[in-house]
Amino acid sequence: MATPLKTIDTAAELAAMMHDMGANSRAAARALALAPKSKKDNALKEMSSFIRACSSVIQAANDEDVAAARAAGASPASIDRLALDARRIAGMADAVEMVATLPDPVGTVMERYRRPNGMVIERIRVPLGVIGVIFESRPNVTADAGALALKAGNAVILRGGSDAFRSARAVHAALVEGLRAAGVPMHAIQFVPTRERAAVGMMLSGLGGAIDVIVPRGGKSLVARVQAEARVPVFAHLEGVCHVYVDGSADLEMAKAIVLNAKMRRTGVCGAAETLLVDRACVPTHLGALVTMLLDAGCEVRGDAETRATDARVKPAGEEDWPAEYLDAVIAARVVNGVAGAIEHIERYGSHHTDAIVAADQAAADRFLREVDSAIVLHNASTQFADGGEFGFGAEIGIATGRMHARGPIGVEQLCTFKYRVRGAGQVRP
Amino acid sequence: MATPLKTIDTAAELAAMMHDMGANSRAAARALALAPKSKKDNALKEMSSFIRACSSVIQAANDEDVAAARAAGASPASIDRLALDARRIAGMADAVEMVATLPDPVGTVMERYRRPNGMVIERIRVPLGVIGVIFESRPNVTADAGALALKAGNAVILRGGSDAFRSARAVHAALVEGLRAAGVPMHAIQFVPTRERAAVGMMLSGLGGAIDVIVPRGGKSLVARVQAEARVPVFAHLEGVCHVYVDGSADLEMAKAIVLNAKMRRTGVCGAAETLLVDRACVPTHLGALVTMLLDAGCEVRGDAETRATDARVKPAGEEDWPAEYLDAVIAARVVNGVAGAIEHIERYGSHHTDAIVAADQAAADRFLREVDSAIVLHNASTQFADGGEFGFGAEIGIATGRMHARGPIGVEQLCTFKYRVRGAGQVRP
Repeated sequence: MATPLKTIDTAAELAAMMHDMGANSRAAARALALAPKSKKDNALKEMSSFIRACSSVIQAANDEDVAAARAAGASPASIDRLALDARRIAGMADAVEMVATLPDPVGTVMERYRRPNGMVIERIRVPLGVIGVIFESRPNVTADAGALALKAGNAVILRGGSDAFRSARAVHAALVEGLRAAGVPMHAIQFVPTRERAAVGMMLSGLGGAIDVIVPRGGKSLVARVQAEARVPVFAHLEGVCHVYVDGSADLEMAKAIVLNAKMRRTGVCGAAETLLVDRACVPTHLGALVTMLLDAGCEVRGDAETRATDARVKPAGEEDWPAEYLDAVIAARVVNGVAGAIEHIERYGSHHTDAIVAADQAAADRFLREVDSAIVLHNASTQFADGGEFGFGAEIGIATGRMHARGPIGVEQLCTFKYRVRGAGQVRP
Repeated sequence: MATPLKTIDTAAELAAMMHDMGANSRAAARALALAPKSKKDNALKEMSSFIRACSSVIQAANDEDVAAARAAGASPASIDRLALDARRIAGMADAVEMVATLPDPVGTVMERYRRPNGMVIERIRVPLGVIGVIFESRPNVTADAGALALKAGNAVILRGGSDAFRSARAVHAALVEGLRAAGVPMHAIQFVPTRERAAVGMMLSGLGGAIDVIVPRGGKSLVARVQAEARVPVFAHLEGVCHVYVDGSADLEMAKAIVLNAKMRRTGVCGAAETLLVDRACVPTHLGALVTMLLDAGCEVRGDAETRATDARVKPAGEEDWPAEYLDAVIAARVVNGVAGAIEHIERYGSHHTDAIVAADQAAADRFLREVDSAIVLHNASTQFADGGEFGFGAEIGIATGRMHARGPIGVEQLCTFKYRVRGAGQVRP
């Protein structure tokens, strides 16, 4: 039932196949851009049903992937990313179904005004076109990315990692059954049917103008390669070196709750705090309490001299700790000179992802929110809110730290562009 | 008074100089991003004053450029693009002064909503960062691009063409005097002080992450090179193959006025119509009248068989005429089968820039506006309205046909990005 594995003998064959996929995507994108909400939502519901209906096939494919990964000596963490079970497959189907309930971004009037000559100008949201998604070992990206791209009226070309190849192909086959049942072009969601690594390079080149944007989903080395090599725009973040700055004016209990949540709720997400900055003004009252709380919660703390003085368990921080993204129960901690010192540190070492201030002083908070140049800046809230769902987007395909087009969580609106629609009554330009 | 011409002996020296320019821009961008409106507007007024005060110096530099161009056998059209006079220099100063009167885009709240947990999320407009502008022979781009970038809180690196080198350098010197007088970092607006062509390639590579976006201003070969080689996002259009489609339901007088204006008001602008499409349903009533009107106005018409049948002066159109951007008093004309035929032609041959329908039938107009995938689509108005000023942007740096970030006219808002500002009261993520 899955797309047959293509036999690719030569580079020219691969190039020809990828070129055809690009052309097919472009044609499908045109049809999708004009598809009404009901048709897209019906396709999403069918896709969800087929994931459920095909769950044993998907599970069998995943079992093979997991067995191969184990045989190759994969780490428990990477097996966990790869492995599906009944609950995870149902979660995938639920997620696709939920996307059907989101409002349709396409056709929304973003802006409307009348010119002195009577022309009415509107800015209308329209699909981006063709999205290339390159992912690694999480098979659910197949369904999530396919569903979000479709909702926004885009075609998508999915390239799954070698580890998850069989699983992703099986999920993709279910999605295509759903498209077919809903009468949506099957090329709306395509899956690269080969493990050939050269296919990634071809996607990064844009397939001769067929791909409008690339979204990488995976580890830092994948994102770095995509950012370095892509000839088309990329929506991604390389890393989330997120900071919590505790101002001298901060309520200690609030600061403790936010710091603990920002670091320890989940340590492996991009919005997890990696560095704690504490205002020199509250070192005697706040620093020790925060550090001891983190240590007691099982978090390793690497601190500067003042931080080390508060608790013997604090390890020394080196210069390499300030830009580090641990993605683990480890935090770097240092004392800074007020909000100005915090901003300076963040601009020097941060990754422009998500940074928070805890402060009662509104002026300090306003300055932080204004001067920290990150995709998301928060006052008195945890950095772990850096998530499309928490922002009310319904679902996201990732978080971007680039400055163009999409910044922060990437939901269905960010997978759209716009055009200007002008209505006149015979106006000509003087 | 102008930046001294740098002597560049080796590629390494050039690379080092360009790298320094990038780093200086990045530092200036940070200061500009936080500069209040009054400071930026004051700098713009000072820049305008210094252009006026330096007009004889600018004129002398321009005279040298013009003399050199003439000696090199430049065409009258290119001399016209290059040459300044008192009126054009005053126009440059006026344009910069006008930018000071525009609203400040930076800090605008684009969106604001409250989450169920009480957090208030705002999307705030912030500067893009550093803009690279690569232009050819129009010296006024120096002032226009410098002013718009500054208003939007961006730093800019200007690279002028060899022909306009002395003129652009003299204008730049006046701008820097204005920055200095207003206390704005002089690296806010930098000019590449060498004619070395390799500097362009370095800018297209992004100067090691220092340039956020490239805006090319010039002919098709420049834009094509920039689009092909840039490793950073580009705001541009390669060509404007704009269509006017006259529907069977169109009022003939309105159609005549719009077609004449769209083609003949100015033939050299990107929003000028290049192809006339006429509905088969109104061939007997409209086609001949439109064609004869164009011919009588001095426009060459290249038509299909039905168009040629209306007037003996119509020349035959070949396949190469449908995608042609004449930028001259020439138009391609053909009969199509209603709005569906028009849409099909435009999607096949157009450049996704600006396309218009003339129709009394609202359903036909709505279909055209929805299905034509161009940056600007108009109903009963001339394609020559494709202009930032006509859209109410105050000023523009060009028109983009890319799908990312900026599409259509590029004004100060399009030279900005955004960030999310979240205000909480101690919220942590469950």
